[in-house]
Amino acid sequence: MERVRLVHGNGGRFSHELTEKFILKYFTNSLLAPLHDGAQFDVPAGRMAFTTDSYVVQPIMFPGGNIGKLAVCGTVNDLAMNGAVPQYLSCGLILEEGLPFEMLDTVLATMADMAKQANIEIVTGDTKVVKKGEVDGIYINTAGVGMIPSGISIAPSNVKAGMDIILSGSIGDHSIAVMGQRFGLSLSESIKTDCAPLNHMVHDVLSAVGDKVALMRDPTRGGLGTVLKEIADQSQVGIRVDESAIIVHPEVQSVCDILGYDPLYLANEGKVVLVVDSSVTEQVLSIMKEHEEGREATCIGRTLDKNIGKVGLQTALGGIRLLDLLGEDQVPRIC
Amino acid sequence: MERVRLVHGNGGRFSHELTEKFILKYFTNSLLAPLHDGAQFDVPAGRMAFTTDSYVVQPIMFPGGNIGKLAVCGTVNDLAMNGAVPQYLSCGLILEEGLPFEMLDTVLATMADMAKQANIEIVTGDTKVVKKGEVDGIYINTAGVGMIPSGISIAPSNVKAGMDIILSGSIGDHSIAVMGQRFGLSLSESIKTDCAPLNHMVHDVLSAVGDKVALMRDPTRGGLGTVLKEIADQSQVGIRVDESAIIVHPEVQSVCDILGYDPLYLANEGKVVLVVDSSVTEQVLSIMKEHEEGREATCIGRTLDKNIGKVGLQTALGGIRLLDLLGEDQVPRIC
Repeated sequence: MERVRLVHGNGGRFSHELTEKFILKYFTNSLLAPLHDGAQFDVPAGRMAFTTDSYVVQPIMFPGGNIGKLAVCGTVNDLAMNGAVPQYLSCGLILEEGLPFEMLDTVLATMADMAKQANIEIVTGDTKVVKKGEVDGIYINTAGVGMIPSGISIAPSNVKAGMDIILSGSIGDHSIAVMGQRFGLSLSESIKTDCAPLNHMVHDVLSAVGDKVALMRDPTRGGLGTVLKEIADQSQVGIRVDESAIIVHPEVQSVCDILGYDPLYLANEGKVVLVVDSSVTEQVLSIMKEHEEGREATCIGRTLDKNIGKVGLQTALGGIRLLDLLGEDQVPRIC
Repeated sequence: MERVRLVHGNGGRFSHELTEKFILKYFTNSLLAPLHDGAQFDVPAGRMAFTTDSYVVQPIMFPGGNIGKLAVCGTVNDLAMNGAVPQYLSCGLILEEGLPFEMLDTVLATMADMAKQANIEIVTGDTKVVKKGEVDGIYINTAGVGMIPSGISIAPSNVKAGMDIILSGSIGDHSIAVMGQRFGLSLSESIKTDCAPLNHMVHDVLSAVGDKVALMRDPTRGGLGTVLKEIADQSQVGIRVDESAIIVHPEVQSVCDILGYDPLYLANEGKVVLVVDSSVTEQVLSIMKEHEEGREATCIGRTLDKNIGKVGLQTALGGIRLLDLLGEDQVPRIC
């Protein structure tokens, strides 16, 4: 038995075998009740965040990570963006008949590692198997819940003019790492996904100055450009950002130049954009730089009370470029 | 624009368009924040249930329902099986490039209808689009949360010998309806999916005699046979069930006879198995029969303090047949 078969998804004996041999090996915790219909746990009274994402990245393995790393970090980060402390995740697997068990094992092991690193538990799940050719390899859906500490309110409506916009580090790395792998390009070994759980860094920021953080967004699909435009639209402010403050690693920029990609619209999986009261900008940057995920954090711009809904990028050449939502796709199946 | 394109999943302008034109039309509620990274809501202190399932049924449309109906009812029912009051659902869509928007629209409209019927809200979601051929049509993942009223404890460990086993109605209808559609069989119009939200019926039972209900399970993939065997194993009891008390509609039985299927191992999407204290059996049956979903409810057997882990089916011919977990699959992609 070296490959996934259709019977592993039929809910019977072979499904039990798959769960016991592969899933329980990694996701053991007191709440996971794989043979029951869900998890049960106690919650305190308060405000909860709930989010979901499906992951269809191709290829499944790429420099610095794999689909399992994305599936845990992506949902952990979405909870963190709500100001929540991520706590419990679900895991829905859709497997292609013929998938080598070795590959599934690697993905699940990575999920377990990332769950530990993010300090969350995978407590409930589901596995479906479809015929060879009906899905490409493995898709994963995760959903997650976590409580939002009192006093924290992260929402577009909290953004006002005159606030600073902080970006936690370089952009474009994830997309270029995946594309390089997909097309078999020989890229520098320094190009790898930035995928990481951001919840610990975000928690430290919120613990220190939570009432001064208006909004957080992770610039995944659509990239930094799309997220900034969404903030301008939803928060009804203008935004001015400085191109020279936005870090693009030279190797990533080179690939972008060759392939014609704009790093502002490439997906990132371990970055956060924060809109904060300008009185705490330096303090937030200092806290973020203590974390590996925020080592290259910079203030990239600010919100304005004019040009509502517009994002102006002050370019290195001295002009202003207006940033819109991502239009035609650059890179499909990037996460 | 009549079909889904890859750009509808890129997180940019076309994703916004898809969300606004199709998704917000049906899933409008105060919590759904499609352009933010999740939903936020207040919860009371207490015990929560959390569950997930992916739906990959083929074909997407079948007599009596479609994949959207399954996706809402399946997760609502899993929450109900935990004794929880289903409240909030997530919705992760994976769409195949080229999917007609008309089909997506039908599926989403059905999800909205079922959400209303089950009295839950779809509050957060995600849409991915993959290339034509990389997925077969549309896959949906839903996850859900709900609070478990105090005093309710549904768990395999609560099952003791001498309890009654109640089944809410006929078995096999869903699988045969889907298979008939898949293979283009001309079946009786009476054969259609049993898919339905069970939470209102379950709520009425638990409100009346919740402390006397030990366990609930919905016999989906794996069918009734697998669920009974799982209960015997996990609860460490023996089980005796009476074949004559298990309803199989004659049209379903005929198709099973022709195709060689055993209805005991076919998936159901609107049925529940309850293990209850025998003092309340009649009362539970009477409450269930007041609901369309429980109109054919019967007591099908009981738990024993002998033959631990074994399920004996008293056949119409007078013999005993031992029921094991489903082995080799009968019907892939049934939900």
